[in-house]
Amino acid sequence: MDRKRIGFMGLGIMGRAMAENVLQGGWPLTVYNRSRDKTVILAELGANVASTPKDLAQASDVVISMLTGPEAVYALLTGENGCARGLEAGKVFVNMSTVSPAYAREIASGLAPLGVTYLDAPVSGSKKPAEEGSLVILAGGPKETVEELTPLFLSMGKQVIHCGDVGQGSMAKMGINMLLGTMMEALGEMLSFGRAGGLSDDVLFEVLHASTLACGLFTLKEKMLREDYYPAQFPLKHMAKDLKYAVDTAYETGAAIPGAAAMQQLYTAAKAKDMGEMDFSAVAKVLLELSGSKSGC
Amino acid sequence: MDRKRIGFMGLGIMGRAMAENVLQGGWPLTVYNRSRDKTVILAELGANVASTPKDLAQASDVVISMLTGPEAVYALLTGENGCARGLEAGKVFVNMSTVSPAYAREIASGLAPLGVTYLDAPVSGSKKPAEEGSLVILAGGPKETVEELTPLFLSMGKQVIHCGDVGQGSMAKMGINMLLGTMMEALGEMLSFGRAGGLSDDVLFEVLHASTLACGLFTLKEKMLREDYYPAQFPLKHMAKDLKYAVDTAYETGAAIPGAAAMQQLYTAAKAKDMGEMDFSAVAKVLLELSGSKSGC
Amino acid sequence: MDRKRIGFMGLGIMGRAMAENVLQGGWPLTVYNRSRDKTVILAELGANVASTPKDLAQASDVVISMLTGPEAVYALLTGENGCARGLEAGKVFVNMSTVSPAYAREIASGLAPLGVTYLDAPVSGSKKPAEEGSLVILAGGPKETVEELTPLFLSMGKQVIHCGDVGQGSMAKMGINMLLGTMMEALGEMLSFGRAGGLSDDVLFEVLHASTLACGLFTLKEKMLREDYYPAQFPLKHMAKDLKYAVDTAYETGAAIPGAAAMQQLYTAAKAKDMGEMDFSAVAKVLLELSGSKSGC
Amino acid sequence: MDRKRIGFMGLGIMGRAMAENVLQGGWPLTVYNRSRDKTVILAELGANVASTPKDLAQASDVVISMLTGPEAVYALLTGENGCARGLEAGKVFVNMSTVSPAYAREIASGLAPLGVTYLDAPVSGSKKPAEEGSLVILAGGPKETVEELTPLFLSMGKQVIHCGDVGQGSMAKMGINMLLGTMMEALGEMLSFGRAGGLSDDVLFEVLHASTLACGLFTLKEKMLREDYYPAQFPLKHMAKDLKYAVDTAYETGAAIPGAAAMQQLYTAAKAKDMGEMDFSAVAKVLLELSGSKSGC
Repeated sequence: MDRKRIGFMGLGIMGRAMAENVLQGGWPLTVYNRSRDKTVILAELGANVASTPKDLAQASDVVISMLTGPEAVYALLTGENGCARGLEAGKVFVNMSTVSPAYAREIASGLAPLGVTYLDAPVSGSKKPAEEGSLVILAGGPKETVEELTPLFLSMGKQVIHCGDVGQGSMAKMGINMLLGTMMEALGEMLSFGRAGGLSDDVLFEVLHASTLACGLFTLKEKMLREDYYPAQFPLKHMAKDLKYAVDTAYETGAAIPGAAAMQQLYTAAKAKDMGEMDFSAVAKVLLELSGSKSGC
Repeated sequence: MDRKRIGFMGLGIMGRAMAENVLQGGWPLTVYNRSRDKTVILAELGANVASTPKDLAQASDVVISMLTGPEAVYALLTGENGCARGLEAGKVFVNMSTVSPAYAREIASGLAPLGVTYLDAPVSGSKKPAEEGSLVILAGGPKETVEELTPLFLSMGKQVIHCGDVGQGSMAKMGINMLLGTMMEALGEMLSFGRAGGLSDDVLFEVLHASTLACGLFTLKEKMLREDYYPAQFPLKHMAKDLKYAVDTAYETGAAIPGAAAMQQLYTAAKAKDMGEMDFSAVAKVLLELSGSKSGC
Repeated sequence: MDRKRIGFMGLGIMGRAMAENVLQGGWPLTVYNRSRDKTVILAELGANVASTPKDLAQASDVVISMLTGPEAVYALLTGENGCARGLEAGKVFVNMSTVSPAYAREIASGLAPLGVTYLDAPVSGSKKPAEEGSLVILAGGPKETVEELTPLFLSMGKQVIHCGDVGQGSMAKMGINMLLGTMMEALGEMLSFGRAGGLSDDVLFEVLHASTLACGLFTLKEKMLREDYYPAQFPLKHMAKDLKYAVDTAYETGAAIPGAAAMQQLYTAAKAKDMGEMDFSAVAKVLLELSGSKSGC
Repeated sequence: MDRKRIGFMGLGIMGRAMAENVLQGGWPLTVYNRSRDKTVILAELGANVASTPKDLAQASDVVISMLTGPEAVYALLTGENGCARGLEAGKVFVNMSTVSPAYAREIASGLAPLGVTYLDAPVSGSKKPAEEGSLVILAGGPKETVEELTPLFLSMGKQVIHCGDVGQGSMAKMGINMLLGTMMEALGEMLSFGRAGGLSDDVLFEVLHASTLACGLFTLKEKMLREDYYPAQFPLKHMAKDLKYAVDTAYETGAAIPGAAAMQQLYTAAKAKDMGEMDFSAVAKVLLELSGSKSGC
């Protein structure tokens, strides 16, 4: 595509890094964020700053949102100064935040009468891949639009996977996050089991890394688990939310997900114990505490 | 160590491949198996064949057992022609099959009065790594004995991890198998969730392999899951047994393992549906069937 | 209260029986049902039949709804001919169907500007208590309104419990249904465990009824379980829905409900196996089938 | 039966009350307990006190044991002064403590060569029914022996249920205790859910007692839950043990018991938090704490 004008709403941990990569990829960029101070760095790097979502949409061909939860998406899309007021036929709205497939389809239906194409394009990967531009983009929507935007996506990520129609990007994201949440909890369980059985953390992680279960996730989280310190790469409250979406979606499609449903309860419990802002790997603390480990909590 | 004489009992899928590697590593080898036909190939490769476990022990400095379950170990160790009758002070008995840590300690205590050193050395890895000599050996017992036998272990594996005292090799094995059983089930759940939600298997596995969750296990099992055909690399009934040991051990140490305990039930259910001889990845069929998927069962 | 005029919408299994009891209690009654044939019997008993929810509301001081799910409630409340158009200041809208506490509060807020009082008043008890007028009414809303309507409620039930503000009747209903769903599943598990262990159903139920666990529920369901035949008293799909509401509500309030969340998955699985229209006690079939019992499915 | 001489081993909370009722029923009674001080009261009431299990067996026609766990039974049965040395052909050994069905069959096999008949006869009911003589006896073994001992059993209980061959009494006990453990946990979950949702305990229990779920158990435990104070009627550590037996037994028979297996983990967690000596209803504390409730722990 020739250099379309990009609008980017939502400059949190993920969004800011992604927006910077769009800018560095050479796209003309306008940004919007509810608390304006987060736009400063991007302005210094050359982005325009819009006062309202509507202004942002008017100044852009493609609007990207990277917000937390459906409520935030809804709030910026609708209303007097909402994004929808600035969108017109031929423009594309790309929601890169994680919502349920049902909600993705709902927004798409709402925008269709305006002639606006909706893509859901949640990402696999957290803070570091966002900064390094190595995210994986899970795109749902018309194939030709996904292909057209692929160069844009590749400024933020290393790979684009077209998952199917609108909502299917979100469906794939639910699936991978279910697995992520379960694997993280299972690692916490192995740690809790091993410590109670007298194994050292050195042995536990050596055994893990030498097995066919070795993966990027476990390498990434080892330090946090060993030091019992969990600065957020992917906040636990978001994992709790994503697993809840998975349970919601499974209820609709009729899939039985006994493991993920059990995990959701543990993340909910962790959130109730004020761990929502920690990294989601802090779910291990719940297991350690259930096992009576003093170092757990 | 100079070339000690090795005895090897138990020539199943894993045992035969391991014994061959011991032989090819240059160790003088005597083998024993209950059904004698399994010894033929090894005899052709140069191994001696003992008529009883007692004979095998008398002809060996180090006896290795690779049997299924504590009952089999007990049966070959004890009795008139049992292995114990041929063991004497200074010899080493290495149990490489998976038993509970408590049982490992029990055998060790039983052999100690004879002056026999016991090592538990279960392996991480299944059929293929056994054939390729790329297992990981999880050793529990006296450090100097583990070090002394390391060259022998390295004929069968690529890495030896000393996990602690007797029983701790088994403890580490329980831990890694808990994670293995949970990750496999979670993958089945993702598959069931994704299919019910309209995602193709192509997309599901592409998303998986592009994520930080990508690991050897998932690559290894993809074909089985996609084709719904499960020739045993690691039989499901053994996973059911290992998870049961983990639940037993957790009960003793006081660790809470809610995820693994739930998984154990699913593997038990799979076994009850006559899937015990299939690969353990067939647990996915239980989930697919719970979700009403016709292709599941 | 003096004889207020009552409107009743929703004449399903429960609703028809409840409406008959209102009529027999001496209240002037107008009924509405989407499929008109269900109104015939009540008309014969002396009820008026309204053509639209709006007409019903105009002809009534108190409108009761007994519908399945929030969508149905929404559909009859809103729109051109919706119930809300016929409600005016001083009237009361009583929702006796099971919705989530959040949705109850949402309807209440919607009706408040009209001067209409909203009560949520879901019932504990299924088909038979509805017919016999022995339901328990779990009421949420202003105390004085609950007290004012108590004579009306007592025409349908034997007891009225004021649970708190609007939404709290639904909260109590979620709580009791969580327990109901878990107890039913646990009974199925006992049956499956006992049969696999060689106990006869005669012994199992004799032991059960002689214990401190004996309760109306178990007496009520014994026949269904023994005969493996499940005509709906409370359809399984409704239990699946109610447990889903409970999971939703627990997510909002931060309560961890690991047992109920696991149960929800089993009821979802049962629904996926086309048991949605059976009585919810058919969840036992899922357990029997998981245990490989041929008689289970 | 004419007045056979009874021996009673194990005078804990349950055993002492049961032995007193045997005495008051008019049977000649000899007692044995490891710590001798517990025999004093019974001696004052007219019982003989034996110095060893062997002496007790020699002085009795029927020996009853009410001990905690298979280890204790084994310890008093075997050895120099063990009960078995005093048993001879025609005598009956009745184990009223809870063991696994497999263990019951194992003892029976061990005693058969001596001509001694073994019955397993665990009881349904805890402290209070033991004192009041209103236990339910779940008997497994030869029908004629069960019938012969029925008058003896009725001195301790209100009902005798013959569950089948040896081991089936234990099987029925496992079944009822699985349900007991699950129902107690589910009540804790309802409490935790309700409190988090703003319901008062008054409302919660009123709703509960008005429902078809109302049962002796819930009435019995209400006070403990409301006051967060759990003096042991049935210690939590014993429930943890019984659920573990159930998991063991289900593994052997191939029954899937997902609910009870999950519950076992929660009771294990409670034990790890030093609640083992509290009443088993204290499992509610684990749920309250998981939900972040301050009053929970």
